[in-house]
Amino acid sequence: MKKYEEKTIKTEKIFEGKVIKLQVDDVQLPNGKKSKRELIKHPGAVAVIPITDEKKIIFVEQYRKPLEKSIIEIPAGKLECGESPEITAIRELEEETGYTAKTLTKLTSFYTSPGFADELMHIYLATDLQKLDQPPALDEDEFIDILELTLDEAKQYVKNERIHDAKTNYAVLYLELQELL
Amino acid sequence: MKKYEEKTIKTEKIFEGKVIKLQVDDVQLPNGKKSKRELIKHPGAVAVIPITDEKKIIFVEQYRKPLEKSIIEIPAGKLECGESPEITAIRELEEETGYTAKTLTKLTSFYTSPGFADELMHIYLATDLQKLDQPPALDEDEFIDILELTLDEAKQYVKNERIHDAKTNYAVLYLELQELL
Repeated sequence: MKKYEEKTIKTEKIFEGKVIKLQVDDVQLPNGKKSKRELIKHPGAVAVIPITDEKKIIFVEQYRKPLEKSIIEIPAGKLECGESPEITAIRELEEETGYTAKTLTKLTSFYTSPGFADELMHIYLATDLQKLDQPPALDEDEFIDILELTLDEAKQYVKNERIHDAKTNYAVLYLELQELL
Repeated sequence: MKKYEEKTIKTEKIFEGKVIKLQVDDVQLPNGKKSKRELIKHPGAVAVIPITDEKKIIFVEQYRKPLEKSIIEIPAGKLECGESPEITAIRELEEETGYTAKTLTKLTSFYTSPGFADELMHIYLATDLQKLDQPPALDEDEFIDILELTLDEAKQYVKNERIHDAKTNYAVLYLELQELL
């Protein structure tokens, strides 16, 4: 939907990194006036809800430099150029948890921060898990612990903010909404 | 929690805008190796779930330049320097919906994109709403429509991805989780 469209007059590219790009757009507003928008371009990301045969959800705990602390999340990673989200999902699952999945089901997608970034997050359900004898190595700058929680435990973590990450909170409540676990 | 902490060796400030700042940090990893992190600094934001006396949730629809389209969200805005989240919540509610709230209840907080940004989103419930005779003007670069949905309607919007914004999806499911509506 293009309602109240803001037409781009000029784009100034500020930064192009390994993960994100930053640009500032001069835009024309619906009333003809002008404004500026600071925009982050992101390749998009995939998150996986891995469910074990014992009906537990596998989470990962890792240090997040932007927050200067470790937090609990579902396994996730950014899309690599030209890669399908399913391939990313399986790769991140294997690297971060040591499991692979015989069944991968697309659940939903959402924008994480539409006020300043275009990141679209795809959520997959991973079931029929199998422990890998030789899981692929993590990226060399990744350090991760895993933990397994029942849905009820995970809901408690959400309620008391021990889990407080958009994709993870939403994934836990989405499982409940759709009665997937 | 500081597990697997990444110590900052050097910070390169790339951009300082009206909404976001961008920096690249050289970090020392837990194994002693070095890496780079691209980080967005954001002042944090507030989102409000306004509930009318008829038990409907008020949403806003607005154009989001990063996505190049209009999407449906709960009212929200970034924290202004030195401003308490409660003041931001009431201001955004009044500007975006034309209502004020006699009762404002903090529900929860979460990070929107911890992989690259420090944005922390605070969610408030606004009840005992009163229509303002003379609502404050929107920011001059904001253009917004409002719509009211029951919780069941909102859950349908979430299921079929007509609502696909992290804070909004989470807010709708959180209302259900906590039986707030």
